[in-house]
Amino acid sequence: MLSYARPIRELIEQLERLPGIGPRSAQRLAFHLLGAGPERAENLAQALQSLHRQIRVCEECGNWSVEALCPVCASDERDRGTLCIVADAKDLVALERAGEYSGLYHVLGGVLSPVEGVGPDELRVAELMDRLERLDVREVILATPPTVEGDATAEFLREILGQFEGLRMTRLALGLPVGADLDYADQVTVARALRGRTEMSD
Amino acid sequence: MLSYARPIRELIEQLERLPGIGPRSAQRLAFHLLGAGPERAENLAQALQSLHRQIRVCEECGNWSVEALCPVCASDERDRGTLCIVADAKDLVALERAGEYSGLYHVLGGVLSPVEGVGPDELRVAELMDRLERLDVREVILATPPTVEGDATAEFLREILGQFEGLRMTRLALGLPVGADLDYADQVTVARALRGRTEMSD
Repeated sequence: MLSYARPIRELIEQLERLPGIGPRSAQRLAFHLLGAGPERAENLAQALQSLHRQIRVCEECGNWSVEALCPVCASDERDRGTLCIVADAKDLVALERAGEYSGLYHVLGGVLSPVEGVGPDELRVAELMDRLERLDVREVILATPPTVEGDATAEFLREILGQFEGLRMTRLALGLPVGADLDYADQVTVARALRGRTEMSD
Repeated sequence: MLSYARPIRELIEQLERLPGIGPRSAQRLAFHLLGAGPERAENLAQALQSLHRQIRVCEECGNWSVEALCPVCASDERDRGTLCIVADAKDLVALERAGEYSGLYHVLGGVLSPVEGVGPDELRVAELMDRLERLDVREVILATPPTVEGDATAEFLREILGQFEGLRMTRLALGLPVGADLDYADQVTVARALRGRTEMSD
């Protein structure tokens, strides 16, 4: 019984370990890269090698960054009175993409999860407290995801941030996604959309 | 507006160019590789670099190979009287996996496709003729895929191989896939399964 030549097999094995890529996709990708010539594979290899060599964690907010400070923290055009706390750097990018926010961020590096052994010490909570003492923050947006664990994390932060007097604490609005079909929305989302209904302006 | 740091963006761009990987998956894969630490990305990078450095085309059959001859051509346990002609090296692996065939292969490198400008000169047809003159082949299995182009390629080969007297030429059977639901099979397949029906043995 013949199988793939060793270098092909090794590439398939590496690709299979990526999330969402099964044995068939891994095989298809490997043969695609074989057929596409050496340059494509080499470019991808170099992008992979640059990743960890060039990317580090922003000393201030925990975002991925090439410099010691990420572009948000380094910018002097951001409102330093608002701090948006996100679970993950991906969430930061999603918020930036919305183009609605001009404050600073703090990346926790996850959410509290007793099941997975993630407590406050595993998250960048001490760094958050330190920043709040240093900075002159008026509002903290608790933008952890609207899941059980994200809600629990926001609740935990609300409690420990209570020590900063006069600090406004907000959470992202829940409701129907824009463009959604009411019929397809889950009942919890519809309930939250009803509860959070807003006055129509003229 | 902030986007991903450049090394992340470059990896996402490279990943997006792979078949079946859209912007969202590329983003998810890049962040997975960031989170998984440098070793995973480095291993994948090395597998990619080894691919074209170590893999070449078997001088004899056109299969992917590390050596000058692929394992099938180099083996002295294969039946050298049977030659199975496949469009692609992937098809060769699929046939090997079935564990039913012990002859040699010939990889065409595609199928005839006037639309895409693939004629006999773009395929390894001259090499096939050369091998049939050199080798002592009794049977040729035309295992190009059961598609319009694969059928046309098999038909083309049947004609030009007519010059080899006494050469048996066969084509893979068409019918229902094992385990298939008749109800879900397309009508052309059901028609071929009926036409190709076989006697039940005791």
